[in-house]
Amino acid sequence: MERIFGEIEGIKEGHIFSNRMEVSLAKVHRPTQAGISGSQNEGADSIVISGGYEDDKDFGDIIIYTGHGGRSNETGKQVADQQLKRQNLALAKSCLEGLPVRVIRGKHKGSIYSPNEGYRYDGLFLIEEYWRKKGKSGFYVWLFRLRKIKNLKLIVEESEEEYKSKRVPTQIQRIIRNTNLSRKIKEMYRYKCQVCDIQIETSSGYYAEASHIKPLGTPHNGPDSLDNLLCLCPNHHVMFDFGGFSIMENFEILGIDAKLTIHKDHTINPKYTKYHFEHFYSEQNRTDLK
Amino acid sequence: MERIFGEIEGIKEGHIFSNRMEVSLAKVHRPTQAGISGSQNEGADSIVISGGYEDDKDFGDIIIYTGHGGRSNETGKQVADQQLKRQNLALAKSCLEGLPVRVIRGKHKGSIYSPNEGYRYDGLFLIEEYWRKKGKSGFYVWLFRLRKIKNLKLIVEESEEEYKSKRVPTQIQRIIRNTNLSRKIKEMYRYKCQVCDIQIETSSGYYAEASHIKPLGTPHNGPDSLDNLLCLCPNHHVMFDFGGFSIMENFEILGIDAKLTIHKDHTINPKYTKYHFEHFYSEQNRTDLK
Repeated sequence: MERIFGEIEGIKEGHIFSNRMEVSLAKVHRPTQAGISGSQNEGADSIVISGGYEDDKDFGDIIIYTGHGGRSNETGKQVADQQLKRQNLALAKSCLEGLPVRVIRGKHKGSIYSPNEGYRYDGLFLIEEYWRKKGKSGFYVWLFRLRKIKNLKLIVEESEEEYKSKRVPTQIQRIIRNTNLSRKIKEMYRYKCQVCDIQIETSSGYYAEASHIKPLGTPHNGPDSLDNLLCLCPNHHVMFDFGGFSIMENFEILGIDAKLTIHKDHTINPKYTKYHFEHFYSEQNRTDLK
Repeated sequence: MERIFGEIEGIKEGHIFSNRMEVSLAKVHRPTQAGISGSQNEGADSIVISGGYEDDKDFGDIIIYTGHGGRSNETGKQVADQQLKRQNLALAKSCLEGLPVRVIRGKHKGSIYSPNEGYRYDGLFLIEEYWRKKGKSGFYVWLFRLRKIKNLKLIVEESEEEYKSKRVPTQIQRIIRNTNLSRKIKEMYRYKCQVCDIQIETSSGYYAEASHIKPLGTPHNGPDSLDNLLCLCPNHHVMFDFGGFSIMENFEILGIDAKLTIHKDHTINPKYTKYHFEHFYSEQNRTDLK
């Protein structure tokens, strides 16, 4: 079954479910027991907060969520260190990739934000950061800070009206864009930068960025398509967006001494590199600044 | 006179001034003639929109603003290409550094968002992007897309209340943090990464990021001080934040083969590197993923 990131059609924020089975059948959070839904490769798409973890903190729009594992089946107490594996790694992956996570709160006594009954769907959150610390038990736990995405709809509507394009602020772009295409280009290049071949390594896997050659925003209105995408490291992404280098019609790189790697299944449209060159590259100024 | 970025004390959004001299005396926009206030090294702190440029577009919360230069003094028409220099470069610098720009709209016929009289202070904007294109005149102009910062106060207040810390979302953090300290550390290292020595070059100058060793946010509550900052390239910033490497008590780098450059005037507090190591570095997992 395909994992769905983001909103589930027909389920509005505030929707109350009687029990975990209902939540699961509605596809809001598939597992009927586990608190984290996700896999290491795809990322996590939803979590349930039900008050079982002593290091959890719920501030409403910001949640400190404890990872999975290390608890005794009998007592529910933390009896071993948590590892950054499986579901915990799935949450870390969602953090790295900027994927939205559905949050479901279950009734419990530990938080004023928990519902009075059953389980409530409380909208989409982004994972801003993850880290480990010695928990109250003395064992290491992994913690994840989630922040609610507040104005997703507002921004998307405003943007559509104004531009007939999908231009939205960076944070939200990350969510909307980070769909199959973006992941596809990164996987095609195995998270290696097409300019410098670097593969950025983090504690939860490789990191790369999908960069649009002709930008999506107004007035450029470049398409969100594979022939308009590059897989870049953050350094070359910044340089590319801010005219540090460009790409010629023959796909040679202009401005820095490097060669563009192009996968055999990746066709770049020279119309878009030409657009980038004309609009973002300023050779005259580069030499002036030196 | 020191250039002030952000809000001017005592001047609320919507404040109406009779003329440019009043705007200048209030320190909202210092120059009495020029549309852009700023310098190449510091960035731009304010702009006035008064309808003189045919390629300007005003969507209210989003503005496409044309750079300075290339117009005839007599006819006001574009008669030459604009260069990414002086005030234009100041705007580009504000874009790169994420500095807030005050926007003042003057009365003119070209936009429904212009005031009925005089000049109106319309709040803080971020410059999201800059590019050049052949303008309506046939000559190259530089364009800047500004987006209004809508919820600055809301977010800062919420954060203070919840955490007694300055934790706010990334975009706003960029503004608040990008003050003297952040600039100081980047200038100390001449925008070179302390890990790899790379100096990222863009069309408008060098780019680096100030990275907090012990993060500012809850529950870390690291201080915004020089002994808790590093000057990093975007690649090593991502890796550091997500546990790709850490720093030992003797300031040797752990996890990658590199040496940390430390300027003689830069004292790093080993308390913070220890915190980073304990909370963000996960050697066990790194080797597992390989």
